[in-house]
Amino acid sequence: MTDIAHIRAAANDEAFARLVAARPRLVGAALAGELIPELRERRVHHAGPPIPFAEMCAPLQGALACAVMLEGWAPDASSALALLGAGAVTTGANNDHASVGPMAGPISASTPVWVVEESGSGAIVVTPFHEGFGHAQCMGSTSDETLERLRITGGEIVPVIDAALRAGGGIDLTPWVAEAILRGDELHNRCVAGTSMLVERLGLYGLEAGVDAPRLAGALKILAVNGQTAATPVMAWAKSMLDCASGVPGSSIVTAYARNGTTVGLKLSGTGDQWFTAPGMLIKAKYLEGFGDEDATLDLGDSAAAEIGGVGAFVAAASPAFARMVGETPADGIEHTLSMYPLCHGESPHVVLPVLDWRGAPLGIDAALVVSTGVAPIHNTAVANKIAGAGIVGTGLVRGAMGCYEQAMAALADAPVAA
Amino acid sequence: MTDIAHIRAAANDEAFARLVAARPRLVGAALAGELIPELRERRVHHAGPPIPFAEMCAPLQGALACAVMLEGWAPDASSALALLGAGAVTTGANNDHASVGPMAGPISASTPVWVVEESGSGAIVVTPFHEGFGHAQCMGSTSDETLERLRITGGEIVPVIDAALRAGGGIDLTPWVAEAILRGDELHNRCVAGTSMLVERLGLYGLEAGVDAPRLAGALKILAVNGQTAATPVMAWAKSMLDCASGVPGSSIVTAYARNGTTVGLKLSGTGDQWFTAPGMLIKAKYLEGFGDEDATLDLGDSAAAEIGGVGAFVAAASPAFARMVGETPADGIEHTLSMYPLCHGESPHVVLPVLDWRGAPLGIDAALVVSTGVAPIHNTAVANKIAGAGIVGTGLVRGAMGCYEQAMAALADAPVAA
Repeated sequence: MTDIAHIRAAANDEAFARLVAARPRLVGAALAGELIPELRERRVHHAGPPIPFAEMCAPLQGALACAVMLEGWAPDASSALALLGAGAVTTGANNDHASVGPMAGPISASTPVWVVEESGSGAIVVTPFHEGFGHAQCMGSTSDETLERLRITGGEIVPVIDAALRAGGGIDLTPWVAEAILRGDELHNRCVAGTSMLVERLGLYGLEAGVDAPRLAGALKILAVNGQTAATPVMAWAKSMLDCASGVPGSSIVTAYARNGTTVGLKLSGTGDQWFTAPGMLIKAKYLEGFGDEDATLDLGDSAAAEIGGVGAFVAAASPAFARMVGETPADGIEHTLSMYPLCHGESPHVVLPVLDWRGAPLGIDAALVVSTGVAPIHNTAVANKIAGAGIVGTGLVRGAMGCYEQAMAALADAPVAA
Repeated sequence: MTDIAHIRAAANDEAFARLVAARPRLVGAALAGELIPELRERRVHHAGPPIPFAEMCAPLQGALACAVMLEGWAPDASSALALLGAGAVTTGANNDHASVGPMAGPISASTPVWVVEESGSGAIVVTPFHEGFGHAQCMGSTSDETLERLRITGGEIVPVIDAALRAGGGIDLTPWVAEAILRGDELHNRCVAGTSMLVERLGLYGLEAGVDAPRLAGALKILAVNGQTAATPVMAWAKSMLDCASGVPGSSIVTAYARNGTTVGLKLSGTGDQWFTAPGMLIKAKYLEGFGDEDATLDLGDSAAAEIGGVGAFVAAASPAFARMVGETPADGIEHTLSMYPLCHGESPHVVLPVLDWRGAPLGIDAALVVSTGVAPIHNTAVANKIAGAGIVGTGLVRGAMGCYEQAMAALADAPVAA
């Protein structure tokens, strides 16, 4: 092995060790501004790498306009869009501010969020409550229904769920993720088992804590009927782990991958906070009836964190019920999982796959392996209508952008490494 | 086709149609004597076909002694055993009295039970709350802990769960079973997903009904920590369906299969309530450390109802996480499921298997096919220590007793059929 290969291998071992040692815990619920101080300024954050407002896709622009309205800085969507277009509200990427959001991923001070804390470092990651599929801000909706639901979630659900979680001591997320995978979720677009486990636990915590029963019932019912409720805590779990693995000089382990509908961006452990971006890509989707490629936004959302963190398509083998959502068979899912091992530094000691005779799930994407094999990782993802606020048009598969990987590896070669 | 073949085919179509049209609903919780009037006499019921007390295995004798103590008819185990041995307490088979119980399956008037009602007929089936794995009456324990837990379950859990279920309108069990199978349970010996869904729903119902929060929390916590909580409602769901299919003249569809640890017994639709019995069999088990065949009771329990109702080993394909419990691989599970189709009249329109490209699970064991192929159905089962009260020693697989099938088919040939 060359010196540089030795250094890279040791660095990746270290980054991988940090990844598997991370202990993300769901500790509460809040409004985002309580946890992310910079949101108390006139800022709104979004999914994917940073991007100028004018270059954003319509769902992203709509989502941020909705955030501006939620914060009371503009009375309607057109005024909000004008403010954003004029640069009177600062935008930024969730991933750069201890947060992740689904689809357009809008987060502002008043966004109702789950709070994940990494037990070793105390570092916080927040992620929005999943809104469901109608009138969702994260699809770009600015409707009255959307704003009303955000206010109800923030005002009525957040306090109840926070009280339950605080009283119960939180939820250790890695065993929860591992068990949900045993229960057939892939935990990105099929999250029903994880959601049931979450609602079950929140109910027990809330009851034991003496949370007001009608309010607890109301909150849990809303969480229970949306099978994707668990999706965003999973994203925050992943980011919390990946953040632990960040900043190891020389490491080519991927620590972030996110999409804003125009560009996609990636971070490596060894290059810290630097983004490497490439043009966004069309999803290979199974569309809902009446929709096609012409209706789709390009790849969108911070939810790819779940994939980079080792679930989603990486554990497709565990979720035969998911395969049909993307027009595939369970055998295809096994093939996807198996095809990720050659791109990963190791296997999860936590998330295991009975169908592969209890082998650990592929974990720790190594950009060096991606570039040397010429194979980009595969990701599950929902597809948003390119019309702001119109919702989901399908679910599909997409490969990571090779351009991001190539740029990142070039930058890593130039980055200083403590030998 | 011969006339008799025509009549049999039409009869089996009718029995199968009744099986899939059944709509078992979990409607409440109670003490068994409230629903099964004959238990108000000096009676105790047990798993499997009827059997004289002297011929019962030790766990069955212990379980019934415990029932006698629970009812207050004897102050200690030896007095209780003496009463039973003297015939001063009448015994009977659960299956003949609208009930099913796990392992020894003891049910007496004070047994805490789930109540399942078939929506079309209003027919009731009851089944005990699963006790967990230490000091279980159903393993033959007569300890103070066992009696205390039965009293707490009956006095504190049953009223709370009954109130929640009644207020919430019950739970339609077939969709619940189908979803738990999608979540990787086989619903006989792996019931964790079904249990979470049950606790989630009971929590919501209880909260909305305004059930006292500390009591609801206490009850749900006990149900939630035992991953087998769902196992007995599944058994009752199965018996409720199978009872609907019973009594079709000429039909060779199996409507009951149960084991008492000494003998095993089977019923056919076309022969109604008649039992066909054969000697009990040793399980091919994966034993817990330190145990072996010499520690095992023979095949025991009414839980085979779940298998006959189309889950358990029949859906082994859906539960890769279960395979290891019986020392097998997920591929073996797929093989087990596939091998049951040739023995079954049809496929479930409700319980579907994504891993087999969403094929319906094999359903409706046809004794004629079992006898003509010479292949008995395969069943998952837990194995009880042959020492009363000592608990589980392993989990394994066992084939149905061919002798039962052969006798049943001989009797069916002699039974009157309305042509």
